[in-house]
Amino acid sequence: MDYARRIGLLRRRITKAGLTGLLVTHLPDIRYLSGFTGSSAALAVTRRSVRLFTDGRYRAQAAEEVKSAQVEIVTGPPAVAAVLWLAAQPGAEFAGFDPMHTTVADLSRFRAELPSRFRRTFLAVLAAPLIEPLRLIKDQDELKLMTRAALIGCELFEHILNIIRPGVQEIEIAAELEHQARLKGAEGMSFETIVASGERSALPHGKATTATLPRRGFVTLDFGIIREGYCSDMTRTVCLGNPKAEERSAYEAVLEAQESAVAAVAAGVSCGDVDEAARSILRRVGMADAFSHSTGHGVGLEIHESPRVGAGQKTRLQTGMVVTIEPGVYWPGKFGIRIEDMVVVTKTGGQVLTPAPKALIEL
Amino acid sequence: MDYARRIGLLRRRITKAGLTGLLVTHLPDIRYLSGFTGSSAALAVTRRSVRLFTDGRYRAQAAEEVKSAQVEIVTGPPAVAAVLWLAAQPGAEFAGFDPMHTTVADLSRFRAELPSRFRRTFLAVLAAPLIEPLRLIKDQDELKLMTRAALIGCELFEHILNIIRPGVQEIEIAAELEHQARLKGAEGMSFETIVASGERSALPHGKATTATLPRRGFVTLDFGIIREGYCSDMTRTVCLGNPKAEERSAYEAVLEAQESAVAAVAAGVSCGDVDEAARSILRRVGMADAFSHSTGHGVGLEIHESPRVGAGQKTRLQTGMVVTIEPGVYWPGKFGIRIEDMVVVTKTGGQVLTPAPKALIEL
Repeated sequence: MDYARRIGLLRRRITKAGLTGLLVTHLPDIRYLSGFTGSSAALAVTRRSVRLFTDGRYRAQAAEEVKSAQVEIVTGPPAVAAVLWLAAQPGAEFAGFDPMHTTVADLSRFRAELPSRFRRTFLAVLAAPLIEPLRLIKDQDELKLMTRAALIGCELFEHILNIIRPGVQEIEIAAELEHQARLKGAEGMSFETIVASGERSALPHGKATTATLPRRGFVTLDFGIIREGYCSDMTRTVCLGNPKAEERSAYEAVLEAQESAVAAVAAGVSCGDVDEAARSILRRVGMADAFSHSTGHGVGLEIHESPRVGAGQKTRLQTGMVVTIEPGVYWPGKFGIRIEDMVVVTKTGGQVLTPAPKALIEL
Repeated sequence: MDYARRIGLLRRRITKAGLTGLLVTHLPDIRYLSGFTGSSAALAVTRRSVRLFTDGRYRAQAAEEVKSAQVEIVTGPPAVAAVLWLAAQPGAEFAGFDPMHTTVADLSRFRAELPSRFRRTFLAVLAAPLIEPLRLIKDQDELKLMTRAALIGCELFEHILNIIRPGVQEIEIAAELEHQARLKGAEGMSFETIVASGERSALPHGKATTATLPRRGFVTLDFGIIREGYCSDMTRTVCLGNPKAEERSAYEAVLEAQESAVAAVAAGVSCGDVDEAARSILRRVGMADAFSHSTGHGVGLEIHESPRVGAGQKTRLQTGMVVTIEPGVYWPGKFGIRIEDMVVVTKTGGQVLTPAPKALIEL
């Protein structure tokens, strides 16, 4: 990862925002800028220096991971140390902080700890995020990791088809999937694995339970791994036994909606238009009401990132963004279906990172 | 879970704080008060009503899980809907919010959305947390779940001893442990599993890597499961081959420190005194510098809760609190040792919830 390049780009944005420095407290942002993977840290960036503050538990790890910043081990809260350090830098009268990742309590603590001469001018609320626009566009190193994570997801899906059968518990499927994920190098799962079978498939977020798979009906698998910090995310819905006519036609409609939205992905297209590509298909067949969520979301170091691919969203896709495309339909007490891919925006359109089969699989 | 009782206790605290209502946005707090386990919600509590706001993905799940509140499905951010609802309640001119779990951006959005007559009086910063003091003291239902989660942790430790041997990858141990956890009913792990072998045992937070276990040396296992929402947390350090004299004596010192701190746990004792019980033992043998973190932390619905069991902490333990006791020593480039139990504060002292063996295990 070219952390120096990222810091360089951030510095330009800091200067452009009329600031002399920036406090960074959101851990994924800190990882993005420095490579530090610990659970307690703050980063201070000025025009000349970058300094990472963490505690004694991370002394050896920070020395190993962090090359783009000086590391300082502190005993109190790292963010307070970072604020005081920023305040002591020459010319750093105007440093900014990110209101999306600073609590009201943190801010009041920072202000209380600052020397009184700073209380009026120091710590400006950022008018717009400075790091998010960088993280939105994945660089080549990131795309390589995300492609790998997504492909491992596909391998896991293929593997897990072998154990999906009536009588198996949802949680056993999740356990096997997560075990294989670990053996393939995952640090963990990007969210609690969804295995929703039979009527439970109508729960968009039906986490795996001890429920046993029925002889007949849909099973929705929605899962993601974290590998080298990056999240994958994919969903497939398979069918135990023969689908009824209404199930099959609903599946075909969701698949058409999903493929239509994938086909709509291209640099310059608005997120709202991608959402509409899926939604209009479901509307045409009278299933719009059953599609109760957005079409997708950005993904990267976090499982939910910008942009939101939802109705009316004006953000335009840019080359290097990675989004999920995941329309679904849900009828409580009956069944549900969702199909999801990760798609990277390229110059010529969208490239699917999760090339697992999408035609209805009957088991 | 007696959610009605918890809401009753919270209402008393709301009234005592001079407020007419409370906005709750921290998901573990929402789960604690309502049983809702989804990933997007806000709760509004007034003297007369409780209302949970979530989005369309959770319609069926909220109807099933939430009995202590009315559920409202909204399309925008649940917290904004909760604020507007609070503002519309009769007599609710003074509602509070939790500054620890409200970002600066959220607060400014709330204020922007509120009718102008509210901008001055509505949404008071809580002077002290209202829900944390309730969650600090675990009730019988919670203790039952936490006891079970901790015992499953002990079973996992016993199981995993069978596969710890030179040449196995740290990540394979983590994978097996997590797989068994799932089969024993865990929803997931409470943090990324630590398997730190050989020199890596000197990393207090050495997550499992592809490193292979050495023929000789320590292996630190620090892991926790989440079951029915509640976290377990335990650490054991075992030795491959025969420990050297300095390794054995360091282990004995950490064990003595750990047992001394466990013995110090009792209602009325300050957290600082518990920390000192461990630290003084390590100081006496010249290892205080190698003990680079606090002795422990509260645990419950979250892996890190109050109280902090650290040097100088004045908070006094109360019956029903659950804390970890986990002193450790770390010498970078050489080795490290940590031993950790979960302990519930009882009327007569402390009861260990993780009764796995602590005498040095040589494999």
